Amino acid sequence: MPKRMLWTTLAVAFVLVMGQLSMAQSPDPLPSWSDGAAKASIIDFVTKVTQEGTPDFVPAPERIATFDNDGTLWSEKPLYFQLFFALDRVKALAPKHPEWKGKEPFASLLKGDVKTALEGGDKAVMDIVMATHAGMTTEDFEKIVKEWIATAKHPKTHRLFTEMTYQPMLELLAYLRANGFKTFIVSGGGIEFMRPWTDPVYGVPPEQVVGSSVKTKFEMRKGGPVLMRLPEVDFVDDKAGKPVGINSHIGRRPIAAFGNSDGDLQMLQWATAGKGARFALLVHHTDANREWAYDKGAENALREAASKGWTVVDMKKDWKVVYPPVN
Amino acid sequence: MPKRMLWTTLAVAFVLVMGQLSMAQSPDPLPSWSDGAAKASIIDFVTKVTQEGTPDFVPAPERIATFDNDGTLWSEKPLYFQLFFALDRVKALAPKHPEWKGKEPFASLLKGDVKTALEGGDKAVMDIVMATHAGMTTEDFEKIVKEWIATAKHPKTHRLFTEMTYQPMLELLAYLRANGFKTFIVSGGGIEFMRPWTDPVYGVPPEQVVGSSVKTKFEMRKGGPVLMRLPEVDFVDDKAGKPVGINSHIGRRPIAAFGNSDGDLQMLQWATAGKGARFALLVHHTDANREWAYDKGAENALREAASKGWTVVDMKKDWKVVYPPVN
Repeated sequence: MPKRMLWTTLAVAFVLVMGQLSMAQSPDPLPSWSDGAAKASIIDFVTKVTQEGTPDFVPAPERIATFDNDGTLWSEKPLYFQLFFALDRVKALAPKHPEWKGKEPFASLLKGDVKTALEGGDKAVMDIVMATHAGMTTEDFEKIVKEWIATAKHPKTHRLFTEMTYQPMLELLAYLRANGFKTFIVSGGGIEFMRPWTDPVYGVPPEQVVGSSVKTKFEMRKGGPVLMRLPEVDFVDDKAGKPVGINSHIGRRPIAAFGNSDGDLQMLQWATAGKGARFALLVHHTDANREWAYDKGAENALREAASKGWTVVDMKKDWKVVYPPVN
Repeated sequence: MPKRMLWTTLAVAFVLVMGQLSMAQSPDPLPSWSDGAAKASIIDFVTKVTQEGTPDFVPAPERIATFDNDGTLWSEKPLYFQLFFALDRVKALAPKHPEWKGKEPFASLLKGDVKTALEGGDKAVMDIVMATHAGMTTEDFEKIVKEWIATAKHPKTHRLFTEMTYQPMLELLAYLRANGFKTFIVSGGGIEFMRPWTDPVYGVPPEQVVGSSVKTKFEMRKGGPVLMRLPEVDFVDDKAGKPVGINSHIGRRPIAAFGNSDGDLQMLQWATAGKGARFALLVHHTDANREWAYDKGAENALREAASKGWTVVDMKKDWKVVYPPVN
C-alpha cells in the first residue's frame, strides 16, 4: 500500500470514529420544536419505521414523505405567495397590454386594488395566472421566477418570501432525510413556480416537486427545441387531485404526509390508508403574533385530524421559532 | 474509544483500502459490450462529466439520464410486450363481456386472430387498452400486472418478458448509476404497467418512471380511499410528448438520452440541445439471429443520429450478448 493511501485511509477512519462518537451524543434533531406531543409523535414514528427487525420497519425506498407547501412549509397570508408573483408580473407586462386598462381583473390590479380584482373569484385568479404564467418557454419562465424569488419581498414582514419558510419544518425535512426518507412537495401551487428554488430552500430537487401545471408543447425552432407554456390548465394538484398527482409523479403511496388545510385532506387520507405504520400531520395556524391565526379552509381537516388522532401542530405552543434567522 | 469500535473502524478502513486497490484495477464496467466506437463514446462521456475541475464536469444532481423502454431496454417484437398483456387480459375478461363476440377488435382477438384485430389501427389498440387497463383501482391493476409479468412468456423465445431485457443496457444503467447518474425510464408504454417491475428488473424505482397514462380519480369508499383508473387517456408519452413528460415529471433536462426509434427523436433532440456535455444514443436493431433486424419506424432518428454524430449501437457488432443468461 502506498504511504499516501495509508494516510488517506487513517484519516477516513478517524472521521468515521468521530462521527460515531458524535452520534452517540445524539443532539436534538428538531431544536426549534418545543417538547410536547407533536414533537414526540414525529420522533416516535421515525424511530419505529427505521428499526430493522421490528414489525413497523419500512425499507428506505418506501419511506416516502409528502409535504404541502403553502401554509405547511411557508406562510400563505395575506395571499398565496404565488399570487404576489402573478401581481408583480401583471405590472411588468402591463405596457405590452394596453387593453388591460379596461378589462377586469387587470384594470383593478393595475390601480393597486387587489381586493376588487379578486372579487371575480376563481375566474379572476385563473385569468391572472394564465396571463402571467403562460405564453413563454419553460426556460424563460424559470428565469422570471428565479429573478422574482431572489428579490421580491413580503408586504408585511419585508422578508424575502423564501425567508418566510418555517424553521421547524426545515428541520423536519432534514430529519426525515437523515433517516432515509425521500421528501416530496405536493402543492396546489404551480410546479414550475416552485422547482427553481425548492432545492436550495427546502433540499427538495425538481424531480421531487408535484404541483399544478399548465399544458406545455414541444416546438422545434431555428435555435433548437423549446417547450412552450400554453394558457391551458393541465392539472390541478389540490384536494382530490393530490392523491392523483402523487400517484402520477411518485407511483408509491407516502407513509407520511404533512399539510395544513382542507386542500390536503385527501392526501392525508390517502397516505394513512396504506398498510403498516403511517403518519399524518397538520400545521395549525394559531399564532397571530409571530405568523397568522386562522382555521378558515382547514375546518374539515382539523375535524378529521381530531377524530383520527393525526398530529396537530399548535404553532404558538409547539414551535420555539417560526421563521429562520435572517442575516 | 471502546475496543469494539476500534475494531469496527479498522475493518471499515480495510474495506476502504481494498476498494481503492480494486478500483485501481478498474474492471470493465460494460463487459457485454464489444470494444468499439459505441462503447468508447459511452465511457468517454461518463469520464468527462464526472471529472471535477474540468469544463465538462456536471454536478451529480444534474446527471439525469432518460431511457426509452420498448426496443431500448427490452425487445418489442413481434408486438410491444404490453400488447401481449392486453391480449391476455382480453381473454381473461371475456367471460364477463359476452358482447365482445360480436364486436371488433375483440371478436377477432378471441378467435386468436391478432392480425385482423389490429387492422383497426390506433382505434383498435385504444379500444383494447381501455377495456383492459381501466375500470379498476390502481392497487388492483398493480396486482394484475405483477402476476402477469411473473408468469407470461414470449411466444417465440419462451422466456419471461423480463428475461428479454438487454444485458448490455442493464450494465449501462448500472454503470451510469455507479457514476452518480439518476436513471429514468421515459416510455410510450403505460406508466403503471412498468412501475410494478422496473425496480427489480432495471433498478429504476417507480418515481423515476415516466410513461403514458389514463386518468385516475380519487374516490372515498367504505373501506377507505381508492384511485380508480378511468377509460380516458391522460397523457401520451411518445414523440413530442417525451420532452413534455420529462419536463412534467423530472423538471430538469437530461444530459444523456437513450432510444431506438422515431418515438424517441424529440427526447434526444431535447436532451442534446442543453448546454454543456451531452450524450445521445440509439439502439439499432441489426441482429436478426439473436433478436430482430428492422429500421422501420426509426428512419428519421437514424438519419438525425448520422448527421449529428449521436452514438448508434449496432446490436450485432457492438453487443457480445443480447439477453441476460437464464437459470
